[in-house]
Amino acid sequence: MSESLLHTIEYPSDLRKITVNNLPTVAKELRDFIIDVVSTKEGHLGASLGVIELTIALHYVFNTPEDLLVWDVGHQAYVHKILTGRKNVFHTNRQLNGISGFPKRSESEYDTFGVGHSSTSISAALGMAIASKLQGKNKHHIAVIGDASIASGMAFEALNHGGDTNANLLVILNDNAIGIDPSVGALKDYLTRIKSTRYDVEQHNIFEGLNFDYSGPIDGHNLEELLRELERLKNVPGPKFLHVITTKGKGLRQAEENQVKYHAPGKFDKISGDVLPKEKNEFTKFQDVFGKTIVELAHKNKKIVGITPAMLTGSSLKFMLEEFPERTFDVGIAEQHAVTLAAGMATEGLIPYCNIYSTFLQRSYDQVIHDVALQNLPVIFCLDRAGLVGQDGATHHGVFDIAYLRCIPNLIIFAPRNEIELRNILYTAQKELKQPIAIRYPRGRGNIKNWQLPFNKIEIGKATCLKEGNKIAILSIGTIAKNVTEAVYNIKNKDLVAHYDMRFVKPLDIEILKNIFKTFNRIITIEDGCKNGGFGSAILEIASNYNYQGKIEVLGIPDNFIHHGTTEELQLQCGIDPQSILKLITQ
Amino acid sequence: MSESLLHTIEYPSDLRKITVNNLPTVAKELRDFIIDVVSTKEGHLGASLGVIELTIALHYVFNTPEDLLVWDVGHQAYVHKILTGRKNVFHTNRQLNGISGFPKRSESEYDTFGVGHSSTSISAALGMAIASKLQGKNKHHIAVIGDASIASGMAFEALNHGGDTNANLLVILNDNAIGIDPSVGALKDYLTRIKSTRYDVEQHNIFEGLNFDYSGPIDGHNLEELLRELERLKNVPGPKFLHVITTKGKGLRQAEENQVKYHAPGKFDKISGDVLPKEKNEFTKFQDVFGKTIVELAHKNKKIVGITPAMLTGSSLKFMLEEFPERTFDVGIAEQHAVTLAAGMATEGLIPYCNIYSTFLQRSYDQVIHDVALQNLPVIFCLDRAGLVGQDGATHHGVFDIAYLRCIPNLIIFAPRNEIELRNILYTAQKELKQPIAIRYPRGRGNIKNWQLPFNKIEIGKATCLKEGNKIAILSIGTIAKNVTEAVYNIKNKDLVAHYDMRFVKPLDIEILKNIFKTFNRIITIEDGCKNGGFGSAILEIASNYNYQGKIEVLGIPDNFIHHGTTEELQLQCGIDPQSILKLITQ
Repeated sequence: MSESLLHTIEYPSDLRKITVNNLPTVAKELRDFIIDVVSTKEGHLGASLGVIELTIALHYVFNTPEDLLVWDVGHQAYVHKILTGRKNVFHTNRQLNGISGFPKRSESEYDTFGVGHSSTSISAALGMAIASKLQGKNKHHIAVIGDASIASGMAFEALNHGGDTNANLLVILNDNAIGIDPSVGALKDYLTRIKSTRYDVEQHNIFEGLNFDYSGPIDGHNLEELLRELERLKNVPGPKFLHVITTKGKGLRQAEENQVKYHAPGKFDKISGDVLPKEKNEFTKFQDVFGKTIVELAHKNKKIVGITPAMLTGSSLKFMLEEFPERTFDVGIAEQHAVTLAAGMATEGLIPYCNIYSTFLQRSYDQVIHDVALQNLPVIFCLDRAGLVGQDGATHHGVFDIAYLRCIPNLIIFAPRNEIELRNILYTAQKELKQPIAIRYPRGRGNIKNWQLPFNKIEIGKATCLKEGNKIAILSIGTIAKNVTEAVYNIKNKDLVAHYDMRFVKPLDIEILKNIFKTFNRIITIEDGCKNGGFGSAILEIASNYNYQGKIEVLGIPDNFIHHGTTEELQLQCGIDPQSILKLITQ
Repeated sequence: MSESLLHTIEYPSDLRKITVNNLPTVAKELRDFIIDVVSTKEGHLGASLGVIELTIALHYVFNTPEDLLVWDVGHQAYVHKILTGRKNVFHTNRQLNGISGFPKRSESEYDTFGVGHSSTSISAALGMAIASKLQGKNKHHIAVIGDASIASGMAFEALNHGGDTNANLLVILNDNAIGIDPSVGALKDYLTRIKSTRYDVEQHNIFEGLNFDYSGPIDGHNLEELLRELERLKNVPGPKFLHVITTKGKGLRQAEENQVKYHAPGKFDKISGDVLPKEKNEFTKFQDVFGKTIVELAHKNKKIVGITPAMLTGSSLKFMLEEFPERTFDVGIAEQHAVTLAAGMATEGLIPYCNIYSTFLQRSYDQVIHDVALQNLPVIFCLDRAGLVGQDGATHHGVFDIAYLRCIPNLIIFAPRNEIELRNILYTAQKELKQPIAIRYPRGRGNIKNWQLPFNKIEIGKATCLKEGNKIAILSIGTIAKNVTEAVYNIKNKDLVAHYDMRFVKPLDIEILKNIFKTFNRIITIEDGCKNGGFGSAILEIASNYNYQGKIEVLGIPDNFIHHGTTEELQLQCGIDPQSILKLITQ
């Protein structure tokens, strides 16, 4: 495989030296390069394969980094990274101390805005465009956003504002009809109609309605057409909107045919394109414990519905969609709507399981407070990807949830220690709760093979003692209990440490705590969430109320953003791995 | 003034007994009744005057409360309250133990969904509509939403989902071209164009584009037309959209002419309509301290810009708009966009003051974390209406901010004790900060006449001792310091209590705290924010780190939602008034 052209390109300035007729060769080499690396190093594949020509065209036509380019979400930014000085470190993608899987300002001046969560690009680029205008700088400002992301409310807010300015803003809609799962919503159908029906000049589509100069749709894999249109748009003043049609996974047959699987396929054979068999793992992902259990429960309880904002596959709610399509709702990237929709359903007697990644629940924080908790509606929040998530890094860790949820009245907060606890709390929640509950569980797998046992009700607010002891009490919440168990196993003095799984961050088990305060003069709390205001902080509050005189040490995520690496590496960084716990106990 | 018809109406069932030709008389009597009460009891006037006919028509045509009616925001729901069993308690509106200024589920079965924050109604009504469908109930589900609220992202998310269902959902756009301030954004112009240009059948407006059956615009003060159209819509299946044109303040000349002032005019003469002179107050509102100071600073520093999501008047950013229109941005009800726009501006060297009410910042929580703090961008958040806000009640208290912001790395959190401190931190923030800061200050006035002193830089992370003492240390944050001062003033033993204004929730002044831990064996913390995870909790964390053995008592908002009343009444309820503090000290 030749890399005769790509090896001459370190930065966009190099790219611009290549003649137009050689650009398709650059595209081919980029495709091979990405497949080469991602097939062994893993990462997000499909999105980047889809924007190879678009990325080349943007850096060819615009004067980056002087002109400012913002990628929405950033799954698709691998090509951009490779063309902007990071080709030689691309193999470190998503690894500890390697480059980030997403654009990141600290990594490159070409990464004008850090991303990870969707639908921020238009707001950011508009802010930049207004700044340039006020400061008399003559720059271009380009946001590249997918059709799934543009349907999110925040993107609409930015379009609504942008169309009311004369800022030099170019919004490029990368329309491939899919996010991680296929796009949904009325806008998606609308975009399809735009593609098939050319509106005549008297008619206005939505984007024209919002005062954008609309052009397209054009073929996003046709370099000539892209270059011509981008060149033209450089001279169009004010807010502009270019509709580009691309194919996710373009150039790898399997990735085009199975776009959901090849979003982030893991290791695959770069020649055949076939995904390699995963390392055999006898344990179940927590998301599948959720997905399989909700199906079981939905069979028994007709009132149960499932809601996800665009994470059907990631949350495994797809299992419910297969069995109960009419009771399963993928509302698109619309976390705010998802929560208030659930609240509305709960007022009419349904039992909504609203599954949102912990980090994305930050998008619907007000709705949790104002629409659910204030009205004490029994919505069941299932917060997947809570705690450290590993390679996705700083934008995706679900480490703030305990702190930001703990201040909300009426809300129960539970973190299962293992698959069985998750299964049983999902059961308990639909059985009798008259108030909202947030159930947080991590990315990855548990360690119990036979978790599909008969359902058992969990008593709300009850902690459990996992191991007796007489000197130090360790209070854990959630699956981090495993690290405690491992640490404790390695202590010689078997009576030294007691281990309590508190289970409920709220309501805390005050009775058991009172006993612990009486018995131990040293307490260690541990969580895979932030220490400021988190679970440990809650224990400190109660300890203060009861005038506890012993020592309490709080372990958790320190007060800085944690970047990417394996979960184990990051736990070590934060001092919540088994070794650090052991050291603290025995020091 | 006759109330011959209105006095026969307690519930919608009574209204429906009245003949159509008598409904305009009911409308007139309702108008008089509202003006009568609100002129002396205060409250939100303009919005309700604008929807008298629409409200009558809705309850006349639909079978409420069986059919489900959701009011967006709820400023406009006075007519609804009067017609649904609350006429005789309407004079208790917004008072302690009186009815709420907003629809509230616990108050009436006609209040199907509690509101206060904008743009939730479509999501909620859609959730209800889906629930009815799944449960085989034949009901109507109606969301009434204003043109300012429908431009918010969350409403778009709901429309995008709703248009993709066949739910029996009717969205009524109450288009009066104004929220609290005049509506802004491209959608507003678009709505104006819809009004003036009737699209022919081949053309599609935005709402039709999203698969809603659009009708209108119709005259929202024409009862006959409203009744006819609502009757027709009862038989249209699937998602429907009715565009209704109304005049805010309809029927009171001054309220129509000065819609911003008469949104909530305070007391006014019900005959002349003139607003009565406010009680003379020599002190300045904190919002005006912000508004006037930012103008001063903007004169000196060209990089300063001001951003508000639809609170030009409420935040007093209107002062800046008057002097620097090109550097002042009212982005509409778009908190998410406002924050990321500010982040984008900051990347290009501007200094954005992003003024958002504390309670509304909940809407942009993810943007604060993901777009501002993670990138450490020096955005200046000005959180007006922090703490207890009084009569607006549970939906509007800004009591969660300290807890939900304190867990965010890189973010400075400051709460000024008085006008001078606010003025000086606004000065300091633009002078040298390389990181984001949140400045939280309350609704209402301070107590310093001459606050416009020369600017003084505030040292980041430095607390201050307001009063020396030797037994008890009181640590306060923000303007609640006033209550402490008042309490302390009434203690006989003048040396008993020391009072520290901590000023920064983050970073905390560790040096002063270490001294306090050494000196005092009793500490009381006080804040007008929630106790769970708040300022007091932060002190507990540090105390635990330094192994403090004394007693710490945390005063603040308890773990339940606080309803409406005067701020003084609510402080008393929460035990953070001067008397409660005094009692705690001297008990």
